[in-house]
Amino acid sequence: MFSVILSHPQMGENIGAAARAMLNFGLTDLRLIAPRDGWPNEKATANAAGALDIMPPVKVYDSTAESIADLHYVLATTSRDRNMIKSVFSPESAVEELCQRLAQNQKTGILFGGERSGLLNDEIALCHGIISIPTRADFSSLNLAQSVLLLGYEWIKTQETMTAYDDNNPPPAPLKEKEAFFKRLETELEAAHFFRSEGSEAIMRRNVRNIFSRADITQGELNILHGILSALRGNKKKRGEK
Amino acid sequence: MFSVILSHPQMGENIGAAARAMLNFGLTDLRLIAPRDGWPNEKATANAAGALDIMPPVKVYDSTAESIADLHYVLATTSRDRNMIKSVFSPESAVEELCQRLAQNQKTGILFGGERSGLLNDEIALCHGIISIPTRADFSSLNLAQSVLLLGYEWIKTQETMTAYDDNNPPPAPLKEKEAFFKRLETELEAAHFFRSEGSEAIMRRNVRNIFSRADITQGELNILHGILSALRGNKKKRGEK
Repeated sequence: MFSVILSHPQMGENIGAAARAMLNFGLTDLRLIAPRDGWPNEKATANAAGALDIMPPVKVYDSTAESIADLHYVLATTSRDRNMIKSVFSPESAVEELCQRLAQNQKTGILFGGERSGLLNDEIALCHGIISIPTRADFSSLNLAQSVLLLGYEWIKTQETMTAYDDNNPPPAPLKEKEAFFKRLETELEAAHFFRSEGSEAIMRRNVRNIFSRADITQGELNILHGILSALRGNKKKRGEK
Repeated sequence: MFSVILSHPQMGENIGAAARAMLNFGLTDLRLIAPRDGWPNEKATANAAGALDIMPPVKVYDSTAESIADLHYVLATTSRDRNMIKSVFSPESAVEELCQRLAQNQKTGILFGGERSGLLNDEIALCHGIISIPTRADFSSLNLAQSVLLLGYEWIKTQETMTAYDDNNPPPAPLKEKEAFFKRLETELEAAHFFRSEGSEAIMRRNVRNIFSRADITQGELNILHGILSALRGNKKKRGEK
């Protein structure tokens, strides 16, 4: 099954309701990024209708990157247009995609933003694609737990008819390996004075990550990218040298 | 669209949340059968996030029979086995059935039971079929508003015109632009002695192209990649230089 990751959730009630909705549909891996009121949370427990007692312990992280470090493929839920070039999935097609990857032993997850402002663009840049829940255009705000509910519902719908996909493609690299590459690339770009103005630097960093996030880069390909970086920076021995 | 009929709802909060969920997905005909705390209800208003102001006035009835008197076809949601011989629909197939009947100008509705005990067998007997929402067998209790949400969600999925997927993504760069980037990258990599052995060079070239081919890279992103290449090769002016 996929992991459910709630970024900066504010109200314990919503975390509890999300946990309950998860368990209704057979999802049990809940992860929290910096919950406002800490963890455990009494209101979450009260609103989970016992789900938190049945599920494995909730995992709590300080940062988004840490929370998804062991996953291979992550989708972000968002209702706003982000001007980022990402695949856009419906809840149904998103879960289909996750199922195919799970059948290939990839670890997958869906990232949900907090109540007030949703996900940051920098968080979305870490994800492979976006899930857009269809709603009436002029009345589109869904509660956090309701979004989790809809994705859980699409998940359980697949569980009866799911077929295994034989696919010999190598899995994408774990996100922590990708993150390590990004960090190195950024360091090298800084040293090379790539980031011209302070103002645009954050946007440019995000754009660079986006380029490499959309493709399912494998570990072997990451190794090639590291090699390219070393070569271009002149750290590599010349052909024929020992 | 189909009507949503809540039978003997208890908590105003749930009525409000159901109304909000309805409007999220474009449903606006809400009917109440003998709401415990009367109507209108302050807690319902507070939890509807404005939906009750946008929707036509909620209709209130004393009995189930009255509430569905003008409808041609009604389905009942229930999680319990009723030992009644009725067609059982999934939420998805239920909405399909309703759509077909709406296309024939039939008026349709879905009946939801109250929080405590759901629908009475006598109420279900008035309905044409049953909707069973798939859940984990040992953790199946869904909140009233959540059940409404799932049916509304299945409804909007059938509506083609609603799609809020603003697909403003820029197109991928023309292949000739990509090819120009590849050629430049290869030239730089050769100069940096990246290709170690003649034998593996062709494979490595292909692997490098593969990395950048899978993502739909836009022209803007190609420009970034050119910039990265220039920076890493040290051809770029330092920040602040002219």
